[in-house]
Amino acid sequence: MSDSPLLAPGASELFQLLRDGSPRTRAELAKSTGLARSTIAARVDELMRMGLVTAVADKVSTGGRPPSQFALNPAAKVVIAADLGASHATVAISDLAGTVLAESSERIDIADGPDAVLGWLLDGARRLLADVGRDDASVAAIGIGVPGPVEHSSGRPSNPPIMPGWDRFDIPGWLQEHIAVPVLVDNDVNMMALGERAGAWPSVDNLLFVKIATGIGAGLVSDGHLQRGAQGVAGDIGHVHVARGGDVPCTCGNRGCLEALASGPAIARNLRGIGVEAHTASDVVELVKRGNVEAIQAVRQAGRDIGEVLTTCVSLVNPSMIAIGGSMARVGEHLIAGVREVVYARSAPLATAHLSIVQSATGAEAGVLGAGMLAVEHALSHDVLASSPVRV
Amino acid sequence: MSDSPLLAPGASELFQLLRDGSPRTRAELAKSTGLARSTIAARVDELMRMGLVTAVADKVSTGGRPPSQFALNPAAKVVIAADLGASHATVAISDLAGTVLAESSERIDIADGPDAVLGWLLDGARRLLADVGRDDASVAAIGIGVPGPVEHSSGRPSNPPIMPGWDRFDIPGWLQEHIAVPVLVDNDVNMMALGERAGAWPSVDNLLFVKIATGIGAGLVSDGHLQRGAQGVAGDIGHVHVARGGDVPCTCGNRGCLEALASGPAIARNLRGIGVEAHTASDVVELVKRGNVEAIQAVRQAGRDIGEVLTTCVSLVNPSMIAIGGSMARVGEHLIAGVREVVYARSAPLATAHLSIVQSATGAEAGVLGAGMLAVEHALSHDVLASSPVRV
Repeated sequence: MSDSPLLAPGASELFQLLRDGSPRTRAELAKSTGLARSTIAARVDELMRMGLVTAVADKVSTGGRPPSQFALNPAAKVVIAADLGASHATVAISDLAGTVLAESSERIDIADGPDAVLGWLLDGARRLLADVGRDDASVAAIGIGVPGPVEHSSGRPSNPPIMPGWDRFDIPGWLQEHIAVPVLVDNDVNMMALGERAGAWPSVDNLLFVKIATGIGAGLVSDGHLQRGAQGVAGDIGHVHVARGGDVPCTCGNRGCLEALASGPAIARNLRGIGVEAHTASDVVELVKRGNVEAIQAVRQAGRDIGEVLTTCVSLVNPSMIAIGGSMARVGEHLIAGVREVVYARSAPLATAHLSIVQSATGAEAGVLGAGMLAVEHALSHDVLASSPVRV
Repeated sequence: MSDSPLLAPGASELFQLLRDGSPRTRAELAKSTGLARSTIAARVDELMRMGLVTAVADKVSTGGRPPSQFALNPAAKVVIAADLGASHATVAISDLAGTVLAESSERIDIADGPDAVLGWLLDGARRLLADVGRDDASVAAIGIGVPGPVEHSSGRPSNPPIMPGWDRFDIPGWLQEHIAVPVLVDNDVNMMALGERAGAWPSVDNLLFVKIATGIGAGLVSDGHLQRGAQGVAGDIGHVHVARGGDVPCTCGNRGCLEALASGPAIARNLRGIGVEAHTASDVVELVKRGNVEAIQAVRQAGRDIGEVLTTCVSLVNPSMIAIGGSMARVGEHLIAGVREVVYARSAPLATAHLSIVQSATGAEAGVLGAGMLAVEHALSHDVLASSPVRV
């Protein structure tokens, strides 16, 4: 997913072959990658010394010859994965196959700033490491999703509107003073898109993940690759003006934005306007689950507003799936019905002929799954494999 | 640009190194690609036998040793590039560096169907080949842009609305009965996006090319790759509903589409509505060039309507450049001023901080440049290099 320019030639091919867990011979690895036998031998030896790859016994005895097949050892290392939201955070420990070994969630306030929040993250991760019988030395990489734009190359938040004190803060640098491993930071919705795809739809190459919660944003996977855009702010669809938007003020300073109409707090505000008591996304979800007609209507209309923006997205990038996630997605079909109503009515037939619009299958796990996956991919493809010099 | 799954391992890296025209040694090629020396030697020998690669004399004499540096020979082969529009077509002969050697344009009617139009294309290409002293045997590949959606893998138009008789027609098969080389077919706007990037902005990795002519469509390059989407209809933004659209009927069967308001014929119709004689995009361009105020105002408003749709596109994919092309782009700054007015007013500051909105620099050449480039890339990366077996 992360196409690093520093990747050693052929390293990513080798990784892609090994990470499926199937054992392969050196000759198979050389044939599949086109790499020189000497390069393969050097890499495999180094990976074995590090414990990342293990020798696998042949099915048929080779009469005393050394084992000739190799496979990834998912237990060799772990990664720390974290999903930091505005008011809620999750930290987890995953193995190299992306399986979550331990996880904990807590209410936080991202506005407490980096020292407090990253301190919480580090303490939590170390407790979880101890729970699964590991320590700092077992950690291969750290992946973190944050609720704002991130300069992907440096891991620094870039003018994040709801993260006071975090602008340009060196998140990797802070963590590496404690655990000296690669730290991957990305926008939380990008992480959710990666997690949703890896966890639920690995064969979907054109996926638009839409998070609807306190804010609204999207993560875009096109042709199998996460798209971050020129400034790393691809997917920031919450501030598109919608027809029903009028002069409704938005937190961004503009008026009539999608987020000002269809986010959790916006729906709650609209409900209060007609005398229904609701303050948060959770309140709205509760009302819908209890069958409150006004809440159901408000959610359906929010779905239509979101659908209006998604219609243009569908026309531009032609995804085969839109997955709706975030805390508001828990209201279920009423929201998605509104989205479908507009997208299917307004898009060109060819773009929607094979388009599925579904509720996120990974739910609250999407972000932490994606953060773990990004950390695993980076650890295995870049820092480990690229550190093995190519000898040809 | 075309990531073929059939590509021999390492072939695309070798090609990327050679196509810049700089000479390199076998050792440099091996080091840069990580491929085995035996693989490099086999490929280079085969490429030399085919004349695609030539030996280059060392700067310093090597005392009788065989020449050790190699470079692409752009004159070894040519490609046929064609840009088929609804009513106008261009065919060209390019060398392997993408330089156009000969070109001719003519009025056609795409509705005459594949036999007539492809017959014209083949005759024209053969005349141009003769003009530059080549023949069918010199042709390495053919690239064709057509004004409708294309199933990229098969090169067949897929429900093209303005190409009667072409649906599912096997364009590659028809041409290959005459010239047996790979034929790459793609949507004309995708070709224009590739041509604009290659011809004018090779370092721009996130480019949105917007064609405004009889229809309106876009070609999207993200992270350096052309995005075709799940069904190959990415960029089909002409049928998004716009605020000013109301009930204006569109040729697609829907109402209020961007194309029904801001395409060349739509602007001409709006002008006729206020008593200004105009029928085609060219008429509108002429009126604007003569300083007709109503035409300037109509074009500016069309720019705003297009800007409304592009605002969502900018938010979703965060390009660093939008290039406006197609016949309507010849009106110059009035159209682009309308686009800029809305995009800069309505997009999030981070997405527009480094966004340029410019007139296409390759103009009417964009399509044929892109078709030539796709043909060259395919010829050099896939069929030639992959036919050289990998021996490790």
